[in-house]
Amino acid sequence: MGVTGLLEEIAAIGRDGATGGYRRYAWTRADADLRAWFAGTAAGLGLDVVEDRVGNQWAWWGEPDAHPGVVTGSHLDSVPDGGAYDGPLGVASSFAAVARLRAEGFAPAVPLGVANFVDEEGARFGVACSGSRVLSGAMSAEHALGLRDGDGTTMAEALAAAGRDPAHVGRDDEALARIGTFVELHVEQGRLLAGPDEGAGRPVAVGSSIWPHGRWRFELAGEANHAGTTRLDDRRDPMLALAALITGARSTAADLGCVATVGKVVVRPNGVNAIPSSVTGWLDARGPDEDAVRRLVPLLEERLGVAATTESFTPDTRFDEPLAADLAALLGDVPVIGTGAGHDAGVLATRGLRTAMLFVRNPTGVSHSPAEHADEADCEAGVDALVRVLRHLAG
Amino acid sequence: MGVTGLLEEIAAIGRDGATGGYRRYAWTRADADLRAWFAGTAAGLGLDVVEDRVGNQWAWWGEPDAHPGVVTGSHLDSVPDGGAYDGPLGVASSFAAVARLRAEGFAPAVPLGVANFVDEEGARFGVACSGSRVLSGAMSAEHALGLRDGDGTTMAEALAAAGRDPAHVGRDDEALARIGTFVELHVEQGRLLAGPDEGAGRPVAVGSSIWPHGRWRFELAGEANHAGTTRLDDRRDPMLALAALITGARSTAADLGCVATVGKVVVRPNGVNAIPSSVTGWLDARGPDEDAVRRLVPLLEERLGVAATTESFTPDTRFDEPLAADLAALLGDVPVIGTGAGHDAGVLATRGLRTAMLFVRNPTGVSHSPAEHADEADCEAGVDALVRVLRHLAG
Repeated sequence: MGVTGLLEEIAAIGRDGATGGYRRYAWTRADADLRAWFAGTAAGLGLDVVEDRVGNQWAWWGEPDAHPGVVTGSHLDSVPDGGAYDGPLGVASSFAAVARLRAEGFAPAVPLGVANFVDEEGARFGVACSGSRVLSGAMSAEHALGLRDGDGTTMAEALAAAGRDPAHVGRDDEALARIGTFVELHVEQGRLLAGPDEGAGRPVAVGSSIWPHGRWRFELAGEANHAGTTRLDDRRDPMLALAALITGARSTAADLGCVATVGKVVVRPNGVNAIPSSVTGWLDARGPDEDAVRRLVPLLEERLGVAATTESFTPDTRFDEPLAADLAALLGDVPVIGTGAGHDAGVLATRGLRTAMLFVRNPTGVSHSPAEHADEADCEAGVDALVRVLRHLAG
Repeated sequence: MGVTGLLEEIAAIGRDGATGGYRRYAWTRADADLRAWFAGTAAGLGLDVVEDRVGNQWAWWGEPDAHPGVVTGSHLDSVPDGGAYDGPLGVASSFAAVARLRAEGFAPAVPLGVANFVDEEGARFGVACSGSRVLSGAMSAEHALGLRDGDGTTMAEALAAAGRDPAHVGRDDEALARIGTFVELHVEQGRLLAGPDEGAGRPVAVGSSIWPHGRWRFELAGEANHAGTTRLDDRRDPMLALAALITGARSTAADLGCVATVGKVVVRPNGVNAIPSSVTGWLDARGPDEDAVRRLVPLLEERLGVAATTESFTPDTRFDEPLAADLAALLGDVPVIGTGAGHDAGVLATRGLRTAMLFVRNPTGVSHSPAEHADEADCEAGVDALVRVLRHLAG
C-alpha cells in the first residue's frame, strides 16, 4: 500500500476542472466522499472507525479506552484551489504506515490510531482547525455552530444538511483522553528542506514550533453610487481603504519581521459601474515573534481608522521538546524546524497534549496551490519515518 | 395609470431580500418576469408588442412600418443591487404617458412606440447597452454572443437557456428604420437638478450629451502560495498590483479631471490563508474631455506594467442639438444638462439616429444603489413632460 497510490484513490474528489486545484470544504459532498474513503480504507486495514462529538474520524488498532494511545493522521479538507498533499499526505502516510506495521507482524503495546480532523483549513467557515479546537475546548460549540459560510449558511445548518445533529457537537473529553501522543505528518509548506539553508538535502524533518498566527476581518464601509455621475470629492469609496489595507499590511509586516497577507476580499455589490457600498478584507498575519504579530493589527487599525474583528489567534506554539529531540535522534539526526503554518497538532499542543510533527520535503515550497508537490521518493521516506516513530512510541 | 403605481407592480421582481437592491440581469428569470410585465402592460394599453432580432421589445400604437415613428422607453434590467428607478422609470413613464394620451383622445399622426432595451447595464456580460449596440450594428452579434458571464456562460448559451435562438441575433435594419425620433426618460444620476447649481429647483431637464466613457479589464498575475510560510521577498502577490490600480485610478483621474472607479474585483482563489494566484480588476472611467479619458488607461498601464483589455468605449456623444433646444423651450425653458452615465439613447445617437433625453430630478443624486430615489411628484412631472413631448413630436 504505497502512499502515492492512496493519494491517487482520492485524486478526483473535489478537484476543479479549470484550475486543477482542490475545493474540499467541510460538510460538503466532496468532504462526505473523503470521509467515506477514510472509513473504507481504515476498515480494509482492520481498524475500527469511530467519530467524536465534533465529527473528527478516528480509526483504531486495539481497544482505544484500554490505555492512552499513539495517534497519527492529519486532515482531508483543502483551501480553495489547494494542492493534493496539504492534509491528505498525512492521512495517506498513516494508512501506509499501519499497513507496513501489519505486514511485519508488529503488535502495538498501546492503542494505535489514525485521525482525520474535520475543517482544518477553515476554508468554508473562516476559522481554521475548528475540528480540533472544538474537540479540545479551545473553541466553544456555540461559537463554531454560529459561524457562517459565504452563502450565509451556519455550521449548524451545514451539519444538519449533512445529516448530522448539531446538538451533539461539543468538547469531547472521552475522545481526548484516548490521545497519549499525537504525531502529525505533513508536507512542508516552505523550503527549509529543499533550499540552501540548514536541513537541505534531507527528505524529512521534525517540527519544533508553530509561529503565532491569526486571522482578522476588516469591514470597510462606503456608499454605493454611480461610477459615472458621482464626483470624486462626493465619494465614499471603500476600495481606497482596501488598497490601504493591502499596502499597509505588507509594509507593516516588513517593518515588524512578520508576514501578512490579504488573500480574500468580498466587494459589494461588485458591479463594474457602481462605487461599492462596502468591502470586506481578510488579513492573515504570522511571524516568529508573538509581540510583533500582536502589534501589527493595531497599527493597521490606526492607519485605516477601522476596528478589525479577530476571527482567530493562535499564540506561539511549541511542540513537546523532549519528544522532538527523541524523534530527531531516532530518525538519524534529522533537522528540527519551525513553521509558519497552523495545524491541528498545534491546537492540541496548546491544550497540553503531547504532540510532534514530521515534515516531508516540498521541492518548491509552494503550498495552498495546485502546484504543491512532493516527490514520490520523499513521500515514501516520510512513511518510513512514520513507521519508525510509531514502532518506537507504540512498541 | 400613475407611474409610481406601475413601478409598484414590478417592485418585487429580482429584489434581494438582504440588501433591498435589484439584481435584474439579462436573460434570467427576473428578466423574463419583467419582459412578461412589459408585454402585458402594453397589451392592456392596446399596443402591439413585437421583438427585434436582438430581443429588445417594442410596443406600437399604429402601424410601425407606415412611417418612421416617435419612440420612447428605456430598460428594465439593473446593476447588482441597483435601485428601482434607473431604467424602469423611463418604461413606466412611457406607459403612463401613452395612457394619458389615449384618455385625452390623442390621435398620433405617426406611429408611437414604447421600447424596452435588453441588457442596458451590462451587469451580466460586462458590456453595457448590448441590446442597442447589436440592434444598431455598433457591436457585432458574434462579439456579443461570445461574451461570458461570471459563471462562464456565454450570451449565446444564456439566450438558448431562455428559449431563444442565438442564430437569430443581429443588426436589425427593419427595426431601426421604424425609429424616426427616440426620446428616453431617465432618473437623473447626479445632483444637477437637486443641488445648488444652475437648474436646481426644476423637476425635469433635457439632455445635451453623454460623457465619453469606457470599461477596461486588468488581469493581474501572481503566484499562489501559502500565506504563512512564504517569505515576503519570495512572493508574487497580485493584491499589491490591485492596490496600485485602485490608488492609481483615483489619483490619475483627479489629475486629468475625469472620474475613475474600480467597482468590481475577482480574486482567485480568494482564500484567507493563500496568496492569490491572480486578481482581475475592472476600471470604469469617464469625463467631459475625451482626450483625458483616453489618456488615463495608458498611464495606468505604464504604472502597473500590465496591458488592459478594453471591454467597451463610447466616445463623446451629443444628442440632437436643435431637438434638445426645441424640447427645452416646449417644457418651459427647462435646463439642458450633460451626464456621465451611458444610455441606449447615447448608443443610438452615435449611430446617427435623432435622439433626446429627459431627466427626472434625483434628490440625493444617488444611483446604482438601493437608496436611489425620485419623489412621486417629480415622477409625475416627468410623465407630464413626456406627454407634452410625445404630443408635440407625434401630433
